[in-house]
Amino acid sequence: MSDPLIAAVRTIPDFPEPGVLFKDITPVLDDPALFQEAIERLATPFTAAEVTHIVGIESRGFWFGPTMAARLRAGFVPARKPGKLPFTTLREEYALEYGTDAIEIHADALGTGDRVLIHDDVIATGGTAAATARLVQQTGAEVVGFSFFVELAFLEGREHLPEGVLVRSVLRVE
Amino acid sequence: MSDPLIAAVRTIPDFPEPGVLFKDITPVLDDPALFQEAIERLATPFTAAEVTHIVGIESRGFWFGPTMAARLRAGFVPARKPGKLPFTTLREEYALEYGTDAIEIHADALGTGDRVLIHDDVIATGGTAAATARLVQQTGAEVVGFSFFVELAFLEGREHLPEGVLVRSVLRVE
Repeated sequence: MSDPLIAAVRTIPDFPEPGVLFKDITPVLDDPALFQEAIERLATPFTAAEVTHIVGIESRGFWFGPTMAARLRAGFVPARKPGKLPFTTLREEYALEYGTDAIEIHADALGTGDRVLIHDDVIATGGTAAATARLVQQTGAEVVGFSFFVELAFLEGREHLPEGVLVRSVLRVE
Repeated sequence: MSDPLIAAVRTIPDFPEPGVLFKDITPVLDDPALFQEAIERLATPFTAAEVTHIVGIESRGFWFGPTMAARLRAGFVPARKPGKLPFTTLREEYALEYGTDAIEIHADALGTGDRVLIHDDVIATGGTAAATARLVQQTGAEVVGFSFFVELAFLEGREHLPEGVLVRSVLRVE
């Protein structure tokens, strides 16, 4: 039996650059029933984790993140590229294939006692997610999980995430 | 009586450039009760409009847009900056103070018979929202409304939107 949610994800060759098979999740967003199903599968593994906040990573992590937060009765905190957040920020750098990039959150968005689920649409090498975990830890909050829609498992991004933290993805690409 | 939702929006002077008073809505996202209240106020004016899709404008229009879509049992379509969407796109340009910018949607995301609510966190001069309306019309779909969290009314952005379409904002800044 084909899974309608997984079947809706389309593969776009050579985007954003030659050789990459990009997983396009916009058809899932376009269909209210598939979107609701995606939210359930993303959130359900964490319903008992007492999540207080979801941190969603710019910008495709904003597509499911706030609705997951509403589903878990948690707050939503955006992790953004440098210079996009207007208030006092914390920053973490991470390595790219060539050079480095950085990610920021508002310094007052999280604090001690908060239990954070980090969400992005895709985990590739895991660099951004790992940097986001370090950002969360800078605030004194605890990372209790990672939730991705697509996991590019052949890139082994999980290996770069903190040990002992629950990691779940809806679609694993081997 | 102070309105807790409005009170949570904080004003950041001189962001992103000197002289601008930026309305920071991230404290609303951070609080589940305020987020839920924001979704209700954004969506309620359109519950009878038979909205089939919400088009949210990158990237702060992604914060409320998908949850509004879930609330209205509609699909969500991202309008993105050029080059960000992987599939075949439609494009509209719009004027900036100096030069032009453009916005894109997936060509197959909408079509004839669809009834679209356009959402962004803020309407300023209205150029992006008006370009997004033209994009929607390119697909054959109908624009049935505009929903903004903040309206910078002194910039008169509403004047640039199509006539006869319902425009609603939660917080008007005169």
